[in-house]
Amino acid sequence: MSSDLLKTINSSEEIRRLDSRQLPQLAKELREFIIKIVATKEGHLGASLGVIELTIAIHYVFNTPEDLLIWDVGHQAYGHKILTGRREIFDTNRQLHGISGFPKREESEYDVFGVGHSSTSISAALGMAIASQLKGEYSKQHIAVIGDASIASGMAFEGLNHAGVTSTNLLVILNDNAIGIDPSVGALKQYLTNVKKGTQKQDNIFEALNFDYSGPIDGHNLPQLISELERLKTVKGPKFLHVITKKGKGLKQAEDNQVTYHAPGKFDAETGELVSKSSVKQPPKYQDVFGLTILELAKKNKLIIGITPAMPTGSSLKYMMEEIPDRAFDVGIAEQHAVTLAAGMVTQGYIPFCNIYSTFLQRAYDQVIHDVALQNLPVIFCLDRAGIVGQDGATHHGVFDLAYLRCIPNLIIFAPRNEVELRNMMYTSQLGKLKHPIVIRYPRGRGVTLDWKQPFNEIKIGTGIQLQTGDKIAILSIGTISRNCTEAIKLLPEPQIVSHYDMRFVKPLDETLLHTIFNSYETIVTVEEGCIKGGFGSSILEFASQYNYKNTVKLIGIPDEFIEHGLVEELQLDCQIDSQNIYKIILNFLK
Amino acid sequence: MSSDLLKTINSSEEIRRLDSRQLPQLAKELREFIIKIVATKEGHLGASLGVIELTIAIHYVFNTPEDLLIWDVGHQAYGHKILTGRREIFDTNRQLHGISGFPKREESEYDVFGVGHSSTSISAALGMAIASQLKGEYSKQHIAVIGDASIASGMAFEGLNHAGVTSTNLLVILNDNAIGIDPSVGALKQYLTNVKKGTQKQDNIFEALNFDYSGPIDGHNLPQLISELERLKTVKGPKFLHVITKKGKGLKQAEDNQVTYHAPGKFDAETGELVSKSSVKQPPKYQDVFGLTILELAKKNKLIIGITPAMPTGSSLKYMMEEIPDRAFDVGIAEQHAVTLAAGMVTQGYIPFCNIYSTFLQRAYDQVIHDVALQNLPVIFCLDRAGIVGQDGATHHGVFDLAYLRCIPNLIIFAPRNEVELRNMMYTSQLGKLKHPIVIRYPRGRGVTLDWKQPFNEIKIGTGIQLQTGDKIAILSIGTISRNCTEAIKLLPEPQIVSHYDMRFVKPLDETLLHTIFNSYETIVTVEEGCIKGGFGSSILEFASQYNYKNTVKLIGIPDEFIEHGLVEELQLDCQIDSQNIYKIILNFLK
Repeated sequence: MSSDLLKTINSSEEIRRLDSRQLPQLAKELREFIIKIVATKEGHLGASLGVIELTIAIHYVFNTPEDLLIWDVGHQAYGHKILTGRREIFDTNRQLHGISGFPKREESEYDVFGVGHSSTSISAALGMAIASQLKGEYSKQHIAVIGDASIASGMAFEGLNHAGVTSTNLLVILNDNAIGIDPSVGALKQYLTNVKKGTQKQDNIFEALNFDYSGPIDGHNLPQLISELERLKTVKGPKFLHVITKKGKGLKQAEDNQVTYHAPGKFDAETGELVSKSSVKQPPKYQDVFGLTILELAKKNKLIIGITPAMPTGSSLKYMMEEIPDRAFDVGIAEQHAVTLAAGMVTQGYIPFCNIYSTFLQRAYDQVIHDVALQNLPVIFCLDRAGIVGQDGATHHGVFDLAYLRCIPNLIIFAPRNEVELRNMMYTSQLGKLKHPIVIRYPRGRGVTLDWKQPFNEIKIGTGIQLQTGDKIAILSIGTISRNCTEAIKLLPEPQIVSHYDMRFVKPLDETLLHTIFNSYETIVTVEEGCIKGGFGSSILEFASQYNYKNTVKLIGIPDEFIEHGLVEELQLDCQIDSQNIYKIILNFLK
Repeated sequence: MSSDLLKTINSSEEIRRLDSRQLPQLAKELREFIIKIVATKEGHLGASLGVIELTIAIHYVFNTPEDLLIWDVGHQAYGHKILTGRREIFDTNRQLHGISGFPKREESEYDVFGVGHSSTSISAALGMAIASQLKGEYSKQHIAVIGDASIASGMAFEGLNHAGVTSTNLLVILNDNAIGIDPSVGALKQYLTNVKKGTQKQDNIFEALNFDYSGPIDGHNLPQLISELERLKTVKGPKFLHVITKKGKGLKQAEDNQVTYHAPGKFDAETGELVSKSSVKQPPKYQDVFGLTILELAKKNKLIIGITPAMPTGSSLKYMMEEIPDRAFDVGIAEQHAVTLAAGMVTQGYIPFCNIYSTFLQRAYDQVIHDVALQNLPVIFCLDRAGIVGQDGATHHGVFDLAYLRCIPNLIIFAPRNEVELRNMMYTSQLGKLKHPIVIRYPRGRGVTLDWKQPFNEIKIGTGIQLQTGDKIAILSIGTISRNCTEAIKLLPEPQIVSHYDMRFVKPLDETLLHTIFNSYETIVTVEEGCIKGGFGSSILEFASQYNYKNTVKLIGIPDEFIEHGLVEELQLDCQIDSQNIYKIILNFLK
């Protein structure tokens, strides 16, 4: 692999010093470099391979970082990072204390706005563009690169709608590859397809919003990209460039299997073949417990509907989408719509399971309150990726959900400690007895139970259970962090003196059980993989206050700061919610 | 006033039995009835007057309530309510235990989906339409009536984008009157204006999204409406009807002054003249303290920017928009965009005040976390209508904000107890020293200080103050509910034995002061106009747990249920946060 040219590039200034005829070589080397590193270090592959030429062209034509460039979501920004001074540390990507997998302001002056969640780029870039206009910096450029899946999200439309009535130097580049993590959906996607095929008139939706539209052009053709960007630099006001790219471009396997190669794990840099995983039988991923269980239930219960906002693969709703397509919906990156759609279905007697990553439910917070809980419609929310998610980092951890949901009246909040509990609560929720909406939150990654597909059992709403009986101290945990507690207790010199309860429900609390606990133990330790402020432990304090208990209650959970990226175990250690730390805290109370 | 025909109508079935030639008379009587009642009972006037003919036509043509009709937001649904069995109780509109000002499922089978916040109707109607399709009810109709301001919000776009790839019987009726509460803004609005003028090609944005588009038609022409709705009933798949109406139609004053007559208060039903308010000098509305103070500050500080999502009048940002239009922005019903726009501006050195009603910030929750707090960008959020808002009811109370914001790292949360504190914190926030984003939450309605325009004083972040010194018990309040505490204390036989602290900051807590308090008083009572679960009181419990204080801490706040509509005083009483109840609780502790 030759990387003589790439090695010389440590800033965008150095790209601009190149002769344009050297750029294809730079693109080649950059592509090879990304493939080589991601093959062994893992990460998001396909998106970055698809914008190699676009990345080079933007930095070549525009005066970055003076001109401001925002990558929507940021999966596609590896090339940008490597070209702007982070080549030599790129192998620390997504690792603890390494560079972030997403653009991040602290990391580089080239990362002018931190991203991670989709569809923020137009609003942020417009804010900057208005600021420049107020300063009289009329030649400064503001560029948002956004994918066709992200531009279909409501927030992007709000940004376009405002931008279209300004005279700012905003350039929106639509990176149209017809796929997000999964293939794009929706009417706008069909429309864009028609534009590409030439069957749609040129007078289009973006022109209707007052943008100066150009394209579609080939996003892998460097001369064409450069010439069009040069032209757009001279156009005043909001501009829209439609660029067609191929996700995974340059690695055949990634081009042919775009969903798998979004984030393929380890693979052979030469052939693209995935490194085969261990054949030792492992417990299932929680997402698969959800995905296979909803399918199993939906086969018997014709009222069940599955909904995912753009995560059929990540949520494993894909199994139901394949087998029962008329009742399983990918609505695109549209969490707000997903929630209210589900509410509408409930009014007509259906039982929708609305699967949303914990961090993305933040996007539909008002809909959960206003459309679901206020009307007390029993939507079943399955929140995947709750707690610490690992290498995706601060933008993606699902650590606020218990706190932001707990204040909502009518809502049931449940967290399974293992796969069987998740299955049983999904089963319980669809029996037709549910009187309230319910949130079931579970983590990323694998569970703990090989033999997880056990017969269903109904769970009584609002009941906790005792996992271990002791007499000196009570540990109250919620969700899968239960495991860390169990391990912590085993480390004690006298494990049998500690009681461990899985409270299961953050709401409604099992008050009967809590009265027993508060009357039996002077010291109570709550443990959760969620923020301490306002979370599960806080609800126990409110219970104690309400009934005037004076027990010692110690809260263990995520501290009041944003948690960075790293392995889940590393971050649990950082947050002091690992078994060693829980052990130490218990030991301290026992002294 | 003749209301012979209207009196005979108690269901949509009875409308459908009329001869179509009787409908203009029904429209006339309905319009007069609404004007007569709202003139004395107050409420939202203009929106309902604008859709009288549309309301009658829909119920005449469609088989409501079997066919499902959703009014977006619901300000315009008075006619719908009156015609569907609520004529005789319409004079209880918005009153405690009276009918709601918005459609509400519990109230009538005709109100198939509760509304209040904008832009939910398309998603909810689509959910119902998909349900009908699954049931094989292929002739059932699902109708969303949405205004031009609401359809520009991102959530509506998400609904349209999904609907366009379905074959459901969804009819979206755009009630285009070029105004929400304030005049509509944005590129889509301009586009719609061009469509109306005929300068825009018919092949339009909604057709691009796969809708069968028709219109624009005159929304006050009953025969035209009926014939077009009859035609659309036979069209399969998603349909879009563009209807032009005039807000306030039929009352000249309301037509001419659409912003004022959105909710005019009492007026003369004959002339439309507003009933003149008392000329006694009153304390200012908090919104005006905000609106006049930002203008005052912005005149001196060129970095200040004002942002409102569609509430220039309600927030009083209008004063700055009039005097400094280049730095004051109405971005339309686009809370998500508003927040991230502000974040973008901060990165370029500006100081945006982003004014959003507490209940509507729920729409931008993810943006507050992901775009503002995570990047620690010092956006200044001014949350108007925090706490109980009164007659708008459950959809509009701003009672969750302290709970859902408190878990967000980096955020400062402040609540002024009076106008002067609000002014001083606005002043403090724009001095250029702010290290974090800040939320300043204040209530609807008037303050308590006639002489409110006092010289500015800087407030030290994270400091509470003592309002009254005693030695038996400590009352800790946050925000304007402080006043109820002061009144409660005055009722006591020995008021001087009670200490009263205004903690001012929910975050960061004044820990120094709290240590003093916890060491000085055995009993501490927290008082907030916000939900108890996860709120201010809960933060005090967390403090006590962290430092192992065993004091008695009693929390007073909004209980864990949705609060209905009524006067603020009535609802405070219901929630037991009125001064009498606070007095009783204190008295009980003193015994």
